[in-house]
Amino acid sequence: MLRSYRAAALSAAFVIVAHAAAAQSPAPPQSAAASDPKTNGVMQGFPPAPDKLVRFGDGSSSRFPGTRWSFNHIRELVPTAGVWRGEGVPSKLPRALRDLDGIAITTLDGKQITFADVPALTYADGLLVMHKGAIVYEKYFGEGAAHRPHLAFSVTKSFVGTLAATLVAKGKLDPASPVTRYVPELASSAYGDATVRQVMDMTIGVKYSENYSDPKAEVFDYARAGGMLPQPPGYAGPKTSFEFLVKLEKEGAHDDAFAYKTSNAEVLAGIVKRASGQSMADLLSTEIWQKLGAEEDAYFMVDSIGTESGGGGLATTLRDLARFGEMIRNNGRFNGQQIVPEEAVADIRKSGDPAKFAKAGYPLLKGWAYRNMWWMTNNANGAFVARGIYGQAIYVDPKAEMVVVRYASHPQAANGVNDPVTLPTYEALAKTLGQ
Amino acid sequence: MLRSYRAAALSAAFVIVAHAAAAQSPAPPQSAAASDPKTNGVMQGFPPAPDKLVRFGDGSSSRFPGTRWSFNHIRELVPTAGVWRGEGVPSKLPRALRDLDGIAITTLDGKQITFADVPALTYADGLLVMHKGAIVYEKYFGEGAAHRPHLAFSVTKSFVGTLAATLVAKGKLDPASPVTRYVPELASSAYGDATVRQVMDMTIGVKYSENYSDPKAEVFDYARAGGMLPQPPGYAGPKTSFEFLVKLEKEGAHDDAFAYKTSNAEVLAGIVKRASGQSMADLLSTEIWQKLGAEEDAYFMVDSIGTESGGGGLATTLRDLARFGEMIRNNGRFNGQQIVPEEAVADIRKSGDPAKFAKAGYPLLKGWAYRNMWWMTNNANGAFVARGIYGQAIYVDPKAEMVVVRYASHPQAANGVNDPVTLPTYEALAKTLGQ
Repeated sequence: MLRSYRAAALSAAFVIVAHAAAAQSPAPPQSAAASDPKTNGVMQGFPPAPDKLVRFGDGSSSRFPGTRWSFNHIRELVPTAGVWRGEGVPSKLPRALRDLDGIAITTLDGKQITFADVPALTYADGLLVMHKGAIVYEKYFGEGAAHRPHLAFSVTKSFVGTLAATLVAKGKLDPASPVTRYVPELASSAYGDATVRQVMDMTIGVKYSENYSDPKAEVFDYARAGGMLPQPPGYAGPKTSFEFLVKLEKEGAHDDAFAYKTSNAEVLAGIVKRASGQSMADLLSTEIWQKLGAEEDAYFMVDSIGTESGGGGLATTLRDLARFGEMIRNNGRFNGQQIVPEEAVADIRKSGDPAKFAKAGYPLLKGWAYRNMWWMTNNANGAFVARGIYGQAIYVDPKAEMVVVRYASHPQAANGVNDPVTLPTYEALAKTLGQ
Repeated sequence: MLRSYRAAALSAAFVIVAHAAAAQSPAPPQSAAASDPKTNGVMQGFPPAPDKLVRFGDGSSSRFPGTRWSFNHIRELVPTAGVWRGEGVPSKLPRALRDLDGIAITTLDGKQITFADVPALTYADGLLVMHKGAIVYEKYFGEGAAHRPHLAFSVTKSFVGTLAATLVAKGKLDPASPVTRYVPELASSAYGDATVRQVMDMTIGVKYSENYSDPKAEVFDYARAGGMLPQPPGYAGPKTSFEFLVKLEKEGAHDDAFAYKTSNAEVLAGIVKRASGQSMADLLSTEIWQKLGAEEDAYFMVDSIGTESGGGGLATTLRDLARFGEMIRNNGRFNGQQIVPEEAVADIRKSGDPAKFAKAGYPLLKGWAYRNMWWMTNNANGAFVARGIYGQAIYVDPKAEMVVVRYASHPQAANGVNDPVTLPTYEALAKTLGQ
């Protein structure tokens, strides 16, 4: 069952890289310690030794173990747009460090571990736990560093969804409107008869496969168009993210089932840009980053014409991710001000339709739903999650007054590979901290 | 005479772009106002209109008027390495604004202008004047913005030279040593029998042409190897900056004459990295940027294996450039601390050999010299300059207690095109402020 779940999750995940060999190989990948880019001297020295290079053009930056370096240094490989933190002093993140290492956890495949085992098992680059507004745990591993932004992958989507919900709450975006009100160029695409709300909740019928064992899967066109994979010589596909989106065809019906497809996040990013009149980088800066008192600028990967990847291209520091999570946990308030409207967070927390979610067939995510590009656990604590492949996450637990943020470079993309360890970890942390 | 000077300066300048057509066209380029990317809507909207695009791959980012946008947004076009500003509060830059617009200036070609004319004549993106440690003038134009780093071009070299002089003062680098002590891989190149001092002062005999009317000029190999121009399909030249450097051949003698060649700055950057054991980005961050209390992170353009361009790839904000200039003016002290050793600045200010400089044949730069990658005017005020093509500069005038910094996107590369306006401007400002 876990096996089939993993396969389903793999095909559903947002995967930007062609590493089918690694994912399907029977040989186990190197451990976190063995693949540590720092101790291995990866990309160190001038110039780095030939066997220590990680490059974009040859695909090594998208293949484990190159990913252990590249996810921490993506701006050194591709063009990026800065998300300015503003001129102010960073907001205070109080520290009340606790020893959590001994917390006992039973993984979903029945192994007994402790919290101390989690970083290595999940190939963590950084792991930070906040409780009642204070940092109780913060550690970095491998190339992870407190001041260096890490690629957030699909956690990016939850930022785009939050910005969309913010525009809705401010009356600048109507979720009941057709997508074409904001992006008329999508009229003859799969999105031609969809509403903004359907895009926000990913209940779109679109022919878009993220199955990377199929070389014809649309995810590869998306990645090449969006600047996440190199465009090979003679490449004749779509050259930009926008060109890719307008050609997507309909498949099935809208509003019927949740179906996790990155194209929806890119379309929503386009809607948000049109509704706000700002680039995604500027909007995130003015609406959230500056108000949060972020410590560091964030940035987005961009395509060849400067379009930020709203599906998976945001990079932030772990502490700034924690600030964002704390703001959401506090219903939009942080740093002494209301940043995201309370109604916007309420609209996330009221959750989506679990019946539609169930149709997506995630056996480990029973009762979950998807709303405004957040994953809603609908558990007793009302926890909800921003999830990105290879181990990126914001876990917000309102009842336990806890936010867990993590960045990682797991050898395998699928959330389903991490979930057996991380989902019970979140619950064990919540139980201990909530006592 | 001015005409032949311009030609000489063009061939000697560090030019990363292939815009011979624009430079040699008989039609005058658009004015600063007509080419303003902001009013023209360049790269605005999602997606930008086809005729408003500036891209790296098609060369438009290297051609005027695309350069008016790209020099302000280079990280959105190519990979870059961040220069971290650290955790501290930015250092204070006091403001004592004055109206300088009426200052009369006679250009070197005999035109009567005022200071108010200078920004448009030089296609300024930003212009800032400091006097006695306070900002007396600060304005931004076009896509220039106070918080957005701008490409500094060869002003970068003066940073590398200052870092080298710093390592010398700290005993970590011996200028009398052969280059091969630090970079043995250069043994069979032009640098095989050169000293570090010769590299620092650019008295190297190397076959390296920056004449961009010659398609075989080494500057194009350099730019393609270093990531400043696209590597076309089938490209068989050097793939990295390092590969390019080790193949450079000797031409003429060392120590005979000043000859402005960007390869020297890249070699010095390599020496500095080997001597310090740090990347250029980390070294600049720890030795200077963090201590300055910079407002914003800076960044370097990097090649495909992460090598920062020490010849022209640094981007900073104008205010942080001013902080650096002020620190140099104050003999290494700024923000309440000695940042660069006093001996290092003294070694810059003692100047190079004007006789060697004269052999380079710059008719407008009579009596000048070159030392530690700074241009020494040797004028009565002891002014010295960091200069970059298209209008980038730090002008330090110790006697007038003045620092002028400017970023620009002039249609033509050569310093010689700007000098007839900017050199008398600096002197007029110094005269007014020094009164």
